[in-house]
Amino acid sequence: MKAEILTILKETDGYVSGQELCEKFGVSRTAVWKAMNQLKKEGYEIESVQNKGYHLTKTPDILSKNELVSIRKTKWVGNEIYYYDVTDSTNTQAKSLGEKEAPDGTLVVADKQENGRGRRGRSFESPAATGIFMTLLLKPEIEPGNASMLTLVTAMAVAKGIQKIADLPVQIKWPNDIVIHGKKVCGILTEMSAQMDYVNYIVIGVGINVHNEEFPEEIKDIATSIYLESGKHINRAMLIETIWEEFEYYYDLYIETQDLSKIVKEYDSYLVNRNEKVRVLDPKEPYEGKAMGITERGELIVDTWEARRLVSAGEVSVRGVYGYV
Amino acid sequence: MKAEILTILKETDGYVSGQELCEKFGVSRTAVWKAMNQLKKEGYEIESVQNKGYHLTKTPDILSKNELVSIRKTKWVGNEIYYYDVTDSTNTQAKSLGEKEAPDGTLVVADKQENGRGRRGRSFESPAATGIFMTLLLKPEIEPGNASMLTLVTAMAVAKGIQKIADLPVQIKWPNDIVIHGKKVCGILTEMSAQMDYVNYIVIGVGINVHNEEFPEEIKDIATSIYLESGKHINRAMLIETIWEEFEYYYDLYIETQDLSKIVKEYDSYLVNRNEKVRVLDPKEPYEGKAMGITERGELIVDTWEARRLVSAGEVSVRGVYGYV
Repeated sequence: MKAEILTILKETDGYVSGQELCEKFGVSRTAVWKAMNQLKKEGYEIESVQNKGYHLTKTPDILSKNELVSIRKTKWVGNEIYYYDVTDSTNTQAKSLGEKEAPDGTLVVADKQENGRGRRGRSFESPAATGIFMTLLLKPEIEPGNASMLTLVTAMAVAKGIQKIADLPVQIKWPNDIVIHGKKVCGILTEMSAQMDYVNYIVIGVGINVHNEEFPEEIKDIATSIYLESGKHINRAMLIETIWEEFEYYYDLYIETQDLSKIVKEYDSYLVNRNEKVRVLDPKEPYEGKAMGITERGELIVDTWEARRLVSAGEVSVRGVYGYV
Repeated sequence: MKAEILTILKETDGYVSGQELCEKFGVSRTAVWKAMNQLKKEGYEIESVQNKGYHLTKTPDILSKNELVSIRKTKWVGNEIYYYDVTDSTNTQAKSLGEKEAPDGTLVVADKQENGRGRRGRSFESPAATGIFMTLLLKPEIEPGNASMLTLVTAMAVAKGIQKIADLPVQIKWPNDIVIHGKKVCGILTEMSAQMDYVNYIVIGVGINVHNEEFPEEIKDIATSIYLESGKHINRAMLIETIWEEFEYYYDLYIETQDLSKIVKEYDSYLVNRNEKVRVLDPKEPYEGKAMGITERGELIVDTWEARRLVSAGEVSVRGVYGYV
């Protein structure tokens, strides 16, 4: 009921009558009053005026299951939401839910991660009340070999989401980092549990720097936050909602063709370093070339003097020749 | 100490002096006596004769951590062993251990599974005291795309293991079922947790019908057990040990080349239906052809009238044209 009351308060410009809420939910005035008090305790500023009712005057940046449910507009992402003030890692939680038969679309969100992880087991800083740490659980009927493209689908959705909410010049560093003015604002970690030719489940973890006002010396030249770039403190729940709405759009395009053919063009337009010189840190032998865009399978097209080369999304690093991107 | 005493008893033809055991382990005669009593309770038949010592007269088919440790000869498989009288599924246990940083080579063995699973979530019958249900946890430095070949490596090891212990005409039904006289005696379920280009861990589950004296009507034409084929009740722990010794041999060959090039020839010699007509149940369009063998990547080579086709290991079923194999 709390999430539904929240939705009504948000969608109403003026006052919401207590009597109406009682009738709608079939509860007593005291029950409504208690729910309002709980919402106030969570940080919502709610004015109550005799004979008029309740009015939401301010929604601070609250992350909670109620908040996420109250603004949810997605079709299937977030049909189940698990919210944690603190967890070890949202990917770990989502994988555990995947083993326990949680449905396709389950969303795990945390305010703080104590053991956040990046690619290859690297740690990912996840302090409280500053970022978005979330993981989507998918159980798609796709071949395991097609799963890595989902990381690019998600990158596209995050880029569009940040652009819409914060109006920033977002770009994608292939395959899956989101950068603003060349600095990383978001990382994506896709993990899969599969049998030989069958996907058990996929988890897509998204970590976004939102309110950070500074970064440690060793990463301050390569990391940034939405606040540092825009000077604004955006609402995290709204950004989460927007990202997954975008995701549903691009995911449909991906599922339709089982590749990125319908996304390539737009993805390319977000590609940092496009038409510029890049260095591919191939473990066998690094080489330089011009980044041209991606293929329908999500590979990066790099033209060298000798030939066109396709770089598979993986651990291969691609850097701009003039500084880290 | 119990596993070590067991090893000594097994390796000694005559009597083992209690005094020697006391000195070796630095414990009292009472401690040795207690250990012997515990072993007797577990089912070992141990004779004790005044002034001579202890003598193992009979080892029944006991599955326990002590038994497995006492006969272990593998180099790294089973460096950690988890044994359960009953568990939900050894693959589930091994995956959970994989998440918790258990080492490469950890082996999970159960006498009974309550939720044993086959491919695509099908259930796998796993009654107590009749079979081998075990899962190996691997953390290899291979590309996710190379992982499915490990199923064929394991099939090779199981085939050799059963042949050595039970002296039966074992064959492999591509990619990973072990059959005797055309009936299935073992199934293998490989599962992987991976990032885009990085394997977190792989679990290989092996289920073998050992002592079954009959099968339900609906599967009795396609399933068999080692007992039904040989008339003998073999020792399960010995078979487990032998399979993983074989596995280490074939695994080394696989890791060396990251493919099956050094195993193809032997695998092919075990291939049921080789040089015979098979029907490939391709979901797009089933077709018939002659099974020629496998490629270095583990695909099945099928020659049709028109062309040579390669079948990828996956859900595609391959049947002999004259009955199920």
